[in-house]
Amino acid sequence: MSALETVLVELVVILLIAATVGVALARRANIPYTIALLLVGVGASAIGLSHTIGLTRDLILLVVLPALLFQGGANVDLQRLRRNLLPVVLLAGPGLVLSILLLGAIGRYAFGYPVLVSLLFATMILPTDAVSVVAVFEDLGAPKRLSTVVESESLLNDGVGVALFTTILAVVVEATRRGGSPAALTSATDLARTVGFELLIASVGGFLVGVAAGHLVYRAMVVADDAMLGVSLTVVLAYGSYLLADALGASGAIAVVVAGLFIGDRGETEALDPQTRITVATTWSAVAFLFNTLLFVLIGLETPIEAFVDSAALVAIAFVLVVLARAAVVYPLVSAANGWLDESIARPSQHLIAWSGLHASIPIALVLGLPTDLPVALREELRALVFGVAALSLLVQGLTIGPLLDRLGLVQRSPPEEVYRLLTARLRGVDAAIATASELHRSEELPQDLYVEFCETYGREKNRLETAISQLLDRYPSVRRRAELAGERRVLESEKDAVMAAIKAGVVEGRDADRLLETVDERLERVDAGESDVRRLEETAFREFWTDAIDAYDLDVDRPWRDDEDGAATGPEET
Amino acid sequence: MSALETVLVELVVILLIAATVGVALARRANIPYTIALLLVGVGASAIGLSHTIGLTRDLILLVVLPALLFQGGANVDLQRLRRNLLPVVLLAGPGLVLSILLLGAIGRYAFGYPVLVSLLFATMILPTDAVSVVAVFEDLGAPKRLSTVVESESLLNDGVGVALFTTILAVVVEATRRGGSPAALTSATDLARTVGFELLIASVGGFLVGVAAGHLVYRAMVVADDAMLGVSLTVVLAYGSYLLADALGASGAIAVVVAGLFIGDRGETEALDPQTRITVATTWSAVAFLFNTLLFVLIGLETPIEAFVDSAALVAIAFVLVVLARAAVVYPLVSAANGWLDESIARPSQHLIAWSGLHASIPIALVLGLPTDLPVALREELRALVFGVAALSLLVQGLTIGPLLDRLGLVQRSPPEEVYRLLTARLRGVDAAIATASELHRSEELPQDLYVEFCETYGREKNRLETAISQLLDRYPSVRRRAELAGERRVLESEKDAVMAAIKAGVVEGRDADRLLETVDERLERVDAGESDVRRLEETAFREFWTDAIDAYDLDVDRPWRDDEDGAATGPEET
Repeated sequence: MSALETVLVELVVILLIAATVGVALARRANIPYTIALLLVGVGASAIGLSHTIGLTRDLILLVVLPALLFQGGANVDLQRLRRNLLPVVLLAGPGLVLSILLLGAIGRYAFGYPVLVSLLFATMILPTDAVSVVAVFEDLGAPKRLSTVVESESLLNDGVGVALFTTILAVVVEATRRGGSPAALTSATDLARTVGFELLIASVGGFLVGVAAGHLVYRAMVVADDAMLGVSLTVVLAYGSYLLADALGASGAIAVVVAGLFIGDRGETEALDPQTRITVATTWSAVAFLFNTLLFVLIGLETPIEAFVDSAALVAIAFVLVVLARAAVVYPLVSAANGWLDESIARPSQHLIAWSGLHASIPIALVLGLPTDLPVALREELRALVFGVAALSLLVQGLTIGPLLDRLGLVQRSPPEEVYRLLTARLRGVDAAIATASELHRSEELPQDLYVEFCETYGREKNRLETAISQLLDRYPSVRRRAELAGERRVLESEKDAVMAAIKAGVVEGRDADRLLETVDERLERVDAGESDVRRLEETAFREFWTDAIDAYDLDVDRPWRDDEDGAATGPEET
Repeated sequence: MSALETVLVELVVILLIAATVGVALARRANIPYTIALLLVGVGASAIGLSHTIGLTRDLILLVVLPALLFQGGANVDLQRLRRNLLPVVLLAGPGLVLSILLLGAIGRYAFGYPVLVSLLFATMILPTDAVSVVAVFEDLGAPKRLSTVVESESLLNDGVGVALFTTILAVVVEATRRGGSPAALTSATDLARTVGFELLIASVGGFLVGVAAGHLVYRAMVVADDAMLGVSLTVVLAYGSYLLADALGASGAIAVVVAGLFIGDRGETEALDPQTRITVATTWSAVAFLFNTLLFVLIGLETPIEAFVDSAALVAIAFVLVVLARAAVVYPLVSAANGWLDESIARPSQHLIAWSGLHASIPIALVLGLPTDLPVALREELRALVFGVAALSLLVQGLTIGPLLDRLGLVQRSPPEEVYRLLTARLRGVDAAIATASELHRSEELPQDLYVEFCETYGREKNRLETAISQLLDRYPSVRRRAELAGERRVLESEKDAVMAAIKAGVVEGRDADRLLETVDERLERVDAGESDVRRLEETAFREFWTDAIDAYDLDVDRPWRDDEDGAATGPEET
């Protein structure tokens, strides 16, 4: 078997296991998918499964990360990000620096490291992880606004973290090479100046590269007007902007996130052909999902269990300190930001922001990238510590974010709404049973008398359920309101699905397709904002956009189409 | 720069160049995209651009090919394939073997090779290439039926070709090792027996692996009911079935095509959630496009221009012989198949089939995979010959298929037809919205008053859309004609779905099931041929075949079914 074949076989096996886990979890999702994958990986490693695919720094930083950051950036709701930009930037920039200084100072005493090594550890472990956070939040259905804050912070602080790490690592390596203790080598002000300068270059440079590349590629996509070329171009954009920024000494991570934000936002609102938009978004989601799947299984497989057990106490202390260091900056910074926000971020949400900063793939990529210049013992220890804290972070925080959301009351469902959901769920079951019964009866698989009995039993239950639901809705207008909006949303979504299917099938293209999608999207947005869309349409004199398209044909659409009402109902598809 | 980084930079540069080519070609598509890429690759290689990414046998056969074959298989219209199965199987199996024997026999004199080497060359060069053919046909918008025949043949003969190649290669290597001339070593009957046996194992084994894996994964996708897991599972299916069949000594290429056919077909007609279907199809199209893009640039880059120039005369002769060998089997086999086909494949279409068999990536993968056991001079010469013929095939045939197609007359959409499509697309959206609204209303998730408002708003739009459509159709009879045929096709397809469901459920079996399906298929074919089927039924005294089955029961089916005529119009499908 050639090397490539071995790798392919292992990839297929990993994906097969992961898919099995996914299918098994599909029905009851108490455990987020990524965490389950991690556990499977750890389990496989514990029973000593041999494997040749391994995580390397390059694999994570150059292959996996650009894709995940690009997709993350493109998926951020830019309007919502703009409304929460201050806390996001505060947390991703000053917040990260402050927590690193804090953990660096404490770590000196807690782990007995020289201050520079302690800082290096803090720099590796503290960037929160867009990958893990997004995955967990998606699975749990966290409130939109909080997801936006935590996800965007995670996307941006990766860039800041990598830049800080590179600078501090250079100082540590230099110190080690000179043989002296790293402690006394650099003055604090010198260090601060170097790091501050690097950080500025990294952020500003990354931002500029991202904007420039994003703009160019976006224009090319508009000119190309082809879904497949759109995919090619976004691949070039994601990896190109990352590699280019890196080569220029700027932050690749920041560049690719900005490029992603740019494409996502402009793609939504401007001249991009809808088919291109759908194709590009779908493809990147699928790629991100596959990369995520592989990443988490591999992290599990690579976790050095023995070293982790050996230094269990240290890992536990480090984990607690990491959480505290994050909490120590989240509360004051978010509270400070609240003064400038239209709608402030309340205390329960602050708890969630503090607790949902997961530390996983970025720390692991960074610790795998420690150069061989460093003493072996130090590298091994840092590796055990970082993998250990990452695993604890994923397991402890990852598995408790869901319960915390419930406990903090951030998933806002009232008891009557719970009852409403229970009743409608049961009603759906009853309806399905009745439908199947009548189907079986029609196909002569259910005898008449049994069928009648079925109908009576279920019919009685259905009646009582419907009465209960209608009384519940009368008594709780807020439940009715939400039910109405949810209903409207589903109607509009199925309208959108049908339009997208028509676009994919090539029935409409270009500008027409765009208008069709835009119309639905606008209405979906209004429903999301809590406005009933149908009521609004009736109040305003809404003119459907397609009436423009038929202007040239001088058709009289307001004339009744047929005399009888029945004709209109069957529609022209059969003509 | 690490090795991985170098590879990434080169990939980004190649994609960037390719995308630029794509954007430049987007507006005027005289040159197929893949051919333009090939030319760019050859150009870059001519000016001596250095590059580290190279084509290897494993890269093509293990990474690129499974993806392209799977996507090709999933995209084949299985109904259309069934109606044209005979010519496809004849061309992919006996046709390929015959043309190899023919070219092998002639090549002995034309190139002066020993007969086994001549056969080896024929085996490498003659399998037509799904990759290239599909790419060119898609760009040019070839007639559906011919695409299906040529594409399916190309997908299937890859498996046959690879199996033949492996067997003949083993004999040649064995002969070379013993030092003797390969000529006298094996008796023709021995060779035929070995090759025939291997071919049988490869085809049957590959088919079985494809069906088994396809079935399993399809069931898992239905259970998972998740678009992203669907992508994971199809990745496992494509590469897994290929590697598994290969490991079992069967044809990976046949397995992956069958698996793809299986998923594509079942995905269309059965229990798969539409979002999963769209996501999986979109992702695979994008992956296939990216792989294709890289493949053709790399083929261009790797073309050994000097060797090609040196042996230009030989390459030209070989190209002519390859085309003639294909033509020599296409015309008699297709003519023979015509006897069994309902609608025969006319002479102009036969010209197209003969001419559109492109020889490119499979031959190149096979020649790159020639083992080092063979004499260096022979390997070099075969390499120059195969690359040369492949390049000529792509350029000469690829660039002339378009003009050849033009002679058959391509259908173009008129502006009123565009408007018609816009209106029907919107109508579908409105219908979907109404359907969901009434469903939600029925399940008490949408209150009465809101539902009424919905129905009024959408109903009004629906009315106006229907009026517009009906007036448009009155004014443009050609649009009406095409719309009628499309409508008939959909009605017949849903009839067929119901029949197939009944067959699957065991309601009808054997001869009756066959007759039921045949009846629908015949009518579908007539509609595809542009004949209105319903009108024809009215004109001729059509007697449904099932009336024979009830003759013995003395039933009076011609008695009016309901008193009013309207009942007959809605038809018995709803009873």
